[in-house]
Amino acid sequence: MFFVDDALGYMAVIAIILVFTKLFGLLFRKIKLPEVLGYIIAGLFIGPAIFGEFCGFALIGFESGAADGTYKALFVLEEAADGGNEVISIFSKIGVILIMFSVGLETDLKQLKNTGLASILIACAGVAVPLLLGFLISLPFGSIGLGTEHIYRCIFIGTILTATSVAITVSVLKEMGKVTTKLGTTIVSAAVIDDVIGIVVLSIVTSLAKSGTSTAENGFEAFKGTIYGTIIMIVAFFIVAVAVGFGVSKLFRWMEKKRPNTHRLPVFSLVVCFLYSWAAEEIFGVADITGAFIAGVALATAHKSSEYTDTKISVSSYLLFAPMFFANIGISYITFSGVSGSIILFAFLAVLLGLIGKIIGCGGVAKCFKYSWRESTIAGVGMMARGEVALIVTQTVIDSSLGENALGSEFMLMTVLLILISSILTPILLKVLYKKDLPLQNGPAQSTGGEVLADEPADNGQTAESQT
Amino acid sequence: MFFVDDALGYMAVIAIILVFTKLFGLLFRKIKLPEVLGYIIAGLFIGPAIFGEFCGFALIGFESGAADGTYKALFVLEEAADGGNEVISIFSKIGVILIMFSVGLETDLKQLKNTGLASILIACAGVAVPLLLGFLISLPFGSIGLGTEHIYRCIFIGTILTATSVAITVSVLKEMGKVTTKLGTTIVSAAVIDDVIGIVVLSIVTSLAKSGTSTAENGFEAFKGTIYGTIIMIVAFFIVAVAVGFGVSKLFRWMEKKRPNTHRLPVFSLVVCFLYSWAAEEIFGVADITGAFIAGVALATAHKSSEYTDTKISVSSYLLFAPMFFANIGISYITFSGVSGSIILFAFLAVLLGLIGKIIGCGGVAKCFKYSWRESTIAGVGMMARGEVALIVTQTVIDSSLGENALGSEFMLMTVLLILISSILTPILLKVLYKKDLPLQNGPAQSTGGEVLADEPADNGQTAESQT
Repeated sequence: MFFVDDALGYMAVIAIILVFTKLFGLLFRKIKLPEVLGYIIAGLFIGPAIFGEFCGFALIGFESGAADGTYKALFVLEEAADGGNEVISIFSKIGVILIMFSVGLETDLKQLKNTGLASILIACAGVAVPLLLGFLISLPFGSIGLGTEHIYRCIFIGTILTATSVAITVSVLKEMGKVTTKLGTTIVSAAVIDDVIGIVVLSIVTSLAKSGTSTAENGFEAFKGTIYGTIIMIVAFFIVAVAVGFGVSKLFRWMEKKRPNTHRLPVFSLVVCFLYSWAAEEIFGVADITGAFIAGVALATAHKSSEYTDTKISVSSYLLFAPMFFANIGISYITFSGVSGSIILFAFLAVLLGLIGKIIGCGGVAKCFKYSWRESTIAGVGMMARGEVALIVTQTVIDSSLGENALGSEFMLMTVLLILISSILTPILLKVLYKKDLPLQNGPAQSTGGEVLADEPADNGQTAESQT
Repeated sequence: MFFVDDALGYMAVIAIILVFTKLFGLLFRKIKLPEVLGYIIAGLFIGPAIFGEFCGFALIGFESGAADGTYKALFVLEEAADGGNEVISIFSKIGVILIMFSVGLETDLKQLKNTGLASILIACAGVAVPLLLGFLISLPFGSIGLGTEHIYRCIFIGTILTATSVAITVSVLKEMGKVTTKLGTTIVSAAVIDDVIGIVVLSIVTSLAKSGTSTAENGFEAFKGTIYGTIIMIVAFFIVAVAVGFGVSKLFRWMEKKRPNTHRLPVFSLVVCFLYSWAAEEIFGVADITGAFIAGVALATAHKSSEYTDTKISVSSYLLFAPMFFANIGISYITFSGVSGSIILFAFLAVLLGLIGKIIGCGGVAKCFKYSWRESTIAGVGMMARGEVALIVTQTVIDSSLGENALGSEFMLMTVLLILISSILTPILLKVLYKKDLPLQNGPAQSTGGEVLADEPADNGQTAESQT
């Protein structure tokens, strides 16, 4: 039994986390499920949730559990006041920020400008309908901490349901040779826009939720605590972020011109990412992941070697930080001991509505744009899959900085279910829908949509990631 | 003024450290000094040592300084019991481990087997003479915590003086077209062997120093605390490390054959590195950096794609962890307020002897191998330059785990001086020595030595690093 209290102890813990996440990740790829689910299961496996609770021994455990005799653990971590371990949480938070930064770097604003109205409206409906359904289903569940007395928490449930991940859809479409069809490119563009809208919605609701919990009595903090102050700070954040983004963009273009593909580009990019994240949360009261995302978008418009930067940042991300985030969900957030029947019932209902919401929302808009019933269903199902962004959003809304408006960590289980079920259903349904004998509107891709897809670095990211 | 107590705060601090280290690093490259010195100066610049002490305001400061009104700081860090900040120290320690792992990965044992006797003996003398001189000069300095009452500390001073860094020598030799001469390859091989011998010496002396401080009364810990126990544990460590290394080597060869250049290789390499470091220190009482170094050597013999792994690990290293280590030296270890005249005098004497020791030791052996006086001097001067390994050794011997045998952090200044002065003198002296009109023994390279050089991945590392 080793009590972890220095750098070396943490390095041993990190090593254990890395080896198990990688092994479970590879296993999950084999059975065609997202690797991130494997990472979370690895966290459950090495953390106290399963073996600690039910066998009395965990590879990695916390002081409290080890002290009160619930379980023994090989490595015992200090426990922070709000749960989890401080150092592991820092690594995990850096993982989150790097993932959102990458999502931003892979969002090409110039291409999005040329995207068709169909994609934009599909994305809007894909955010709005699950948001509304998630909110409504939460209202009767006062017994598990939601209900009409906790309106913000109900909105957060809706917000969690908004994030789309098209990685699975893209790989199925590729497999079937449908990725460059008009429908395929529309889906991919819509998913990118979906990210942008989702992050704006998240920023606004978390800011507003925080404004209700401020305890400052006067001065700037008190002003930020009022509802008007919050709205002004949100607007100010987006204005400042865009204005500074232009400056940063110019600076990077100049550096790049002087010496392309040098180490300084990823280093300074990381600096911009971290400072944006920090300023978003600490100065403007907007979620840190919004800052990271916008930093990524700014740098993507700014410089040609954003792909080079993305590659370098990704290395640190996959090598160390991202697995720490996903594993930490399994280690620190998911417990089975406190899970009630109502929470499980609620989780299944929310997942169901999350899936239906995307199909109705996105499919409905597609139908209005004269796609056939079947194609509209494909659009809806294609937008249905969820991934790491849903986990990041969940982590953001169970953060203690939201005070009493924060969701309990037991809702992480819902998000994991959402990813699991949507990842299983999406490829099956897509293949069924495409296999029907009806001929598809298989015309050439819209030129703009096609470019979005061809240049979509998210795709490159996935290809790189698949070299696991 | 922001009190740093969460992940975001640390990310802001990391961003500040990264931007300043990169800027100072680039500046130092411009003036032909090692980048790592720039990193340390950056740490001094943003930490409390200069601006905090003398201007009353630092970008990054510590609780104690900010609380007792010595200075104000923009970001205030919590202070650990043994100085510095826990989280920054963890990042910095990971930086150290990754650097030593890289040094190991770049050590090609197969090539070393074929190295000539000259290189081996030059390396031995290059370790022995500075070690002895450093030890002897420390004996009269009882007033600054050395002296005959603190024999281990005196040995540590000698140990710090042993580490060679040939990066500068190689670049000068390249510039002058002398790198593939017999003398050039002998120097480069000797420097690699010097690393190996130096690390063995460091392991033995730190282990022995620790054995004197153990407070355990019985059981395994008490056994490790005895001098016999310590020696047995050192031997056991090297046996186990090599034996496990063979197993790991086989495993990696198998993985590589199955799927070369996949993400799993660097991830599992990192795992091996971290576990070796942890086990070395926690189980065997040997310095953690020895574990990291041997893990690197094992993986280098093991698999062909060690270069691929080295590249990927290096990205995380230069992007984040290594600058944190060097900057932290400036932020946490170097202070000017407590520096006495005796320490400065001692530092200059030790540096002088460190330089002379290499020239006499390495040059003397070269002379015995029938090199001319001038060539022998070139060999000595070529081995004279110091770099990051000297800093890492210093950090290891001022670590609190060594108890009362640990050196005080004021000796970090000596190491920085050593690097600074040797980096300035080495290229100047080498050029002067080569420019004399006497003809050099400019024959073709020894075939084995030549291969060492051609395949020397340290060189690739340097080339990569030079894309700053």
